[in-house]
Amino acid sequence: MAHLPLDEGRRAYLSTLIEGLLAGQRRALARALTFVENGGPEAQWLLKRLYPRAGRAHIVGVTGAPGVGKSTLVNALASEYRERGRTVAVVAVDPSSPFTGGALLGDRVRMRDVAGDPGVFIRSMASRGSLGGLARTTGDAITVLDAAGFEVIFVETVGAGQVEVDIAQEAHTTLVVEVPGLGDEVQTIKAGLLEIADIFVVNKADHPNAERVELALKMMLDMGGPYEGWKPPIVRTVATRREGIAQLVEAIEAHRHHLQAGDGWQQRVRRRAHEEFTRILRRQLVEHLFSTLPPGRFEQALDHILARKTDPYTAAQELIAESYGLRSG
Amino acid sequence: MAHLPLDEGRRAYLSTLIEGLLAGQRRALARALTFVENGGPEAQWLLKRLYPRAGRAHIVGVTGAPGVGKSTLVNALASEYRERGRTVAVVAVDPSSPFTGGALLGDRVRMRDVAGDPGVFIRSMASRGSLGGLARTTGDAITVLDAAGFEVIFVETVGAGQVEVDIAQEAHTTLVVEVPGLGDEVQTIKAGLLEIADIFVVNKADHPNAERVELALKMMLDMGGPYEGWKPPIVRTVATRREGIAQLVEAIEAHRHHLQAGDGWQQRVRRRAHEEFTRILRRQLVEHLFSTLPPGRFEQALDHILARKTDPYTAAQELIAESYGLRSG
Repeated sequence: MAHLPLDEGRRAYLSTLIEGLLAGQRRALARALTFVENGGPEAQWLLKRLYPRAGRAHIVGVTGAPGVGKSTLVNALASEYRERGRTVAVVAVDPSSPFTGGALLGDRVRMRDVAGDPGVFIRSMASRGSLGGLARTTGDAITVLDAAGFEVIFVETVGAGQVEVDIAQEAHTTLVVEVPGLGDEVQTIKAGLLEIADIFVVNKADHPNAERVELALKMMLDMGGPYEGWKPPIVRTVATRREGIAQLVEAIEAHRHHLQAGDGWQQRVRRRAHEEFTRILRRQLVEHLFSTLPPGRFEQALDHILARKTDPYTAAQELIAESYGLRSG
Repeated sequence: MAHLPLDEGRRAYLSTLIEGLLAGQRRALARALTFVENGGPEAQWLLKRLYPRAGRAHIVGVTGAPGVGKSTLVNALASEYRERGRTVAVVAVDPSSPFTGGALLGDRVRMRDVAGDPGVFIRSMASRGSLGGLARTTGDAITVLDAAGFEVIFVETVGAGQVEVDIAQEAHTTLVVEVPGLGDEVQTIKAGLLEIADIFVVNKADHPNAERVELALKMMLDMGGPYEGWKPPIVRTVATRREGIAQLVEAIEAHRHHLQAGDGWQQRVRRRAHEEFTRILRRQLVEHLFSTLPPGRFEQALDHILARKTDPYTAAQELIAESYGLRSG
C-alpha cells in the first residue's frame, strides 16, 4: 500500500494542472479532480498544494431521500446564483453508482440549463465501494473546487444514510429536502435528518399534500430547539418551474450571514477540518502499518480469525504490537 | 483514548453475563449488548470471549428506502420463522436516531406480534454519530447474538446509503425491499442497491402500481448478470396481512442452501471477517497513536491546518513519523 514517489516529469505535469485550474481551465480542473478521486500519490501531491488555497467557498449541502428532486433543485439554485454573478460548483454524490454504473438519467438532464457557462462546474462522484471512501473523495473534491475559486459549492447527496449525514455536515449550510408523499409524513421526517437541517425545502410544493408536509415539519420544529439564533426556515419550491428558488437563495444567504456574524462559521470550519484530518490520519496509519508488516501477515491473521482460533480484537492488538510495541497507556 | 484494564470484580461480573447469555437469559444478553454498544474495555473483553462461539447464525440483511415497511416485514418474517421452530434475533439499525431520539413509532409496534416469546430477541441500534461507528456496533451486536445461539439474525437498516450497503454486505443473504411508488420506478431502483440484492421484495403488493415495480425490477435483472447460479427472485408481499411471507422464507432458505452447496457461504464469511478485522485494526491504530502522542499535539496540528499553515496530509505524515518513524516503503 505504500506509494512510490513521483518522478520529476509527473510532478511537472501535475504543476501545470494546478496552474491551469487556478487560471480557470476546465480541462485542468477535471483532470485534477480525476487524480484526486483515484487517490494515490498524485492525489496527495495535488491536495498538499491546493489545500492552503482553499477555504473561501460557501459549501452548501443538499440532502434528502431519493426522488425528492434534488438534482433539479440544485440546477435551479445554480442558475439563480449565476444570475446574481456568483460562480458555482456542484458535487453530486451518488453512492449507488458502483452498483449500477452511474446515474441513469444523470448528467445530461442536469447540464441542460447551465451547459457552456464557464461559471458553473458539475462533477458526479461515485463511491469506490468502501466505507468512508466516498466521504474522502467528496471532501477532497471540495478542496480542489474551493481552491479553483468557485464561490458557492453545492454538495448533493442521494439518500439519507449515515454517510450522507456525514457529508452534509461538511457543509456550512445544509438543506434537507422533503416532498409531499403518500401520506406517511411522520415516516418521511423520521428518516429526514431533522437536526442537521439549516433550511428545510418542501419541493414539489404544487402537490396537494404539500401543506401537510409543511405543517408536520413546523410541528417538529416547534417541539425541537432551542435554536441559538437560527430556527430553520421552511421554503416551498417547485424546482421544475423555478418557483421559490429566489426565496431559497435568500434563505441560504441569510444563513451565511448568520454564521459569519457569530462564531458559527468558524465552528463549522473547525468541525470539518477535524473530520477530514482524522480521516486522513486513519488512512495513513493503515498504510504505514501495512508497510511495516511482513508480506502475508495480515492474511495469516485473517485465516486464524476465520478458523475462530483467535478473535479480531486480539489479532489487531498483536499486529500493532509487532510493528510498534505495546501501548503505553 | 487508551483504556484502563478491568479490575477483577468487573471481569467476574462480565463473566456472569457471558454465562447468563449462553444459558439464554435475556437480561444478561441485553446488558452484554449495551456494553458492546458503548465500546470501551468491557466491550473488548466480552467480544474476545464471544467471538469464538459465534459463526453459526444465518445473517439476513433487510434494506430499502424509508417507508417501505421493513419493520413490519421483519416482524412477519420473525413470526414465520418462529412457527417453523427457529429462534430469531433482529438488529434494527436506525441512523436517524441520534438526531430525533429514536424511532417515533418504534419498538412498541414492532414488539406486538412477538412479545413474550423467548425465542425472539429484538434490539434497536442507534448511531453514535460517527462514520463507521454504526457498522462497528452492528457487527459486534451480531457477534453477541450469534454466540447466544440465535439461528436467524435479521439486520434491518433504515435508508439506502453507503453505510446501509456496508451493513447489508455483512449478511449472508440480503433482501432489498421496494414498494409501488409515485410512478418514478427508475429513480427508486437507481438508489435501490440492485447488485447487493439476493432477493427482491415488492412489499405493499396490494397497491395498484405493484405490477409496474415488479416489471421494472425484472427488466433491470434481465439486463444485469451473469448470476452464477443464483438470479435474485422477486417476491411480492403484503407484510401487514402476512401475505407472501411463507414464500419469502422459502426464498431465504433456498438462498442459504445455494450458498452452502458451493463456496458462496464461505466467501461471504471471509468478506465479513475481512471488513470487521480492518475496521477494528483501524480503530486500534488510532487509539495506539493517541496513546503515544504528547497531550495537545493533535489539537496543535489541527490549529495549523485551520490556519492553512499546513495541510492535513502533511500534518498526518508528521504525527505518524513522530510516533513511529518514517515509512519504509
